[in-house]
Amino acid sequence: MSFDFIHETLPQRVVFARGDAPGAVAAEVAAVGGTRAMLIHSGPSAEQVEAVAAQLPLAVRHDDVAMHVPIEVAERARAAARTGDVDVLVSVGGGSATGLAKAVALRSGVPIVAVPTTYAGSEATNVWGMTDNGVKTTGTDRRVLPTSIVYDATLLQSLPADLSVASGLNALAHCVDSMWGPRADPIDRALAEEGIRGLRAGMIGLVDGAGGLDAIEQTLYGAYLAAVSFASAGSGMHHKICHVLGGMYDLPHAQTHAVVLPHVLAFNAPGAPEAAARISRAFGSQTAVAGLAALRRAVSAPRALKDYGMPGEGIAAAVPPILAAIPTNNPKPVSTDDLTALLRAAWEGDEPR
Amino acid sequence: MSFDFIHETLPQRVVFARGDAPGAVAAEVAAVGGTRAMLIHSGPSAEQVEAVAAQLPLAVRHDDVAMHVPIEVAERARAAARTGDVDVLVSVGGGSATGLAKAVALRSGVPIVAVPTTYAGSEATNVWGMTDNGVKTTGTDRRVLPTSIVYDATLLQSLPADLSVASGLNALAHCVDSMWGPRADPIDRALAEEGIRGLRAGMIGLVDGAGGLDAIEQTLYGAYLAAVSFASAGSGMHHKICHVLGGMYDLPHAQTHAVVLPHVLAFNAPGAPEAAARISRAFGSQTAVAGLAALRRAVSAPRALKDYGMPGEGIAAAVPPILAAIPTNNPKPVSTDDLTALLRAAWEGDEPR
Repeated sequence: MSFDFIHETLPQRVVFARGDAPGAVAAEVAAVGGTRAMLIHSGPSAEQVEAVAAQLPLAVRHDDVAMHVPIEVAERARAAARTGDVDVLVSVGGGSATGLAKAVALRSGVPIVAVPTTYAGSEATNVWGMTDNGVKTTGTDRRVLPTSIVYDATLLQSLPADLSVASGLNALAHCVDSMWGPRADPIDRALAEEGIRGLRAGMIGLVDGAGGLDAIEQTLYGAYLAAVSFASAGSGMHHKICHVLGGMYDLPHAQTHAVVLPHVLAFNAPGAPEAAARISRAFGSQTAVAGLAALRRAVSAPRALKDYGMPGEGIAAAVPPILAAIPTNNPKPVSTDDLTALLRAAWEGDEPR
Repeated sequence: MSFDFIHETLPQRVVFARGDAPGAVAAEVAAVGGTRAMLIHSGPSAEQVEAVAAQLPLAVRHDDVAMHVPIEVAERARAAARTGDVDVLVSVGGGSATGLAKAVALRSGVPIVAVPTTYAGSEATNVWGMTDNGVKTTGTDRRVLPTSIVYDATLLQSLPADLSVASGLNALAHCVDSMWGPRADPIDRALAEEGIRGLRAGMIGLVDGAGGLDAIEQTLYGAYLAAVSFASAGSGMHHKICHVLGGMYDLPHAQTHAVVLPHVLAFNAPGAPEAAARISRAFGSQTAVAGLAALRRAVSAPRALKDYGMPGEGIAAAVPPILAAIPTNNPKPVSTDDLTALLRAAWEGDEPR
């Protein structure tokens, strides 16, 4: 363990309230003194949205939500918040709804109560993102960290199993990359280890169908810790690879993460004994690599980038920008040959080496 | 795991800066905009205090510190802070120095940068305490949570081994009781598990002498997590026993905790499978009880209450107030016979059952 670090813990209330999002949200809104709420929603059923709305001091209802928060969508939401003179934002939905609430909070400082309906984890970070003509800008700001999160597993019951798995594997990638991100410290690693424990148990329950609401809650719990640790540790080698590939070849986000992760873990683990020990302990497996492989089998995870539209000739072109982006604190130095072999294996769907 | 909980994460910066308390403290003071610092110190050498003072915008230097923060000591410190028009408090010392800074902050709202020189953990909580004519009052307040903690292992090098072990075992009791305190949730348990991991490795290093500054840092890390989890989870059966016994028979604090802890763990573990699994995992042992026993042997922990002045006849008198204080969510119901047998074993120094 390295004990030369600065860790900043961000303030947040986390509420697990199975079947009672409406009551729990109303309590959190009251706790921040909210009297004029803006409800931003995208994803849950009309009935679920109504149930939350019914217990709010509602001033504005807003469902003009889009992926990656286009700037014009953000401006419309900000205008609605100003017109409605709102003093609390309630987001109900996936990353797009949370992200739009953050765009409003970034300008206005109005507190957010976030009710996630996927495993994206944005609700647990101070990171915002917006797109302008398809170009994404991100940043961190204390004002965009939701004051409270309300997790209600019943809101995720209708999420299809394949989407749940993809979203859960994305969260798992947050945990693994948190082990060696540029600002990773022992606290981040401990939270990420616990996150893996929750995600593993939860995702196995999600796919075998026996887990029900318990499995959803374990996955939510793991995804929450994944986001907390990842926001603190920062993007490591895995996320740098996925961002470059995603941007160059327009690959699907979750599948790219799912395919690349085992290859990065197999590459870095020998140079990161503490991370490897934590990951294997969380999986309850002999090695970190074996633990991830077993989970991937259990959930039938995607295997090959070639299945998602990446051209084989694209590997060589991706290597230089990825090498330039990999943090200098990566547990092992990465050569052009190393990275080419790694990408080739991920493209073919070979076993990680 | 129970997923029906509210967890509140409190904001704090934690800085590990081996050998550089002066520089790290100055940076944290600057980060909160401090221009007139009050340095409250008790414990470290004059040279160490001077080194910190030299880099501060110093307005007041205060070493009028006493155990348990008597109200008159608090009032003198508050007056000094007002007279000096201070805008940041820097405490360097053990629980008494941190506690006095909290008493000043409770009234004034001035932020605290805490530099601990023991494993007490007060620096990581929003709990304050003061005594008036020997009667202790405690409470929680957001203003008393230090804004930043600076851990510098070199400040603890002169702490005697027996005091280090006693202080470390006290921190270990925070971790164990956090597993089933009245507000305990999975996040608390995960932090407490990681705390045990740090305390175990650190304390073994402290007593075998081979650990040096690494061992001190691991113990500090464990004690920090112990305090975070305990402040969130609240006092469980173990602390209720120790508080009643300590109050009735004026027993030494750390030794009482060290003797009682294995008996409470052995009693509760069968009713708390998640806690038992976490504790045994943190110890790397077959069972939680075996792991604690092995650590206690390694550090030659105190064994019997009768060695510390408790009269054998005192057991019966202590049972009713303890039974009344044990939280209703304790993993196992506790009868008069259970508690009498537990206290008898702790008094005699028998093996836990």
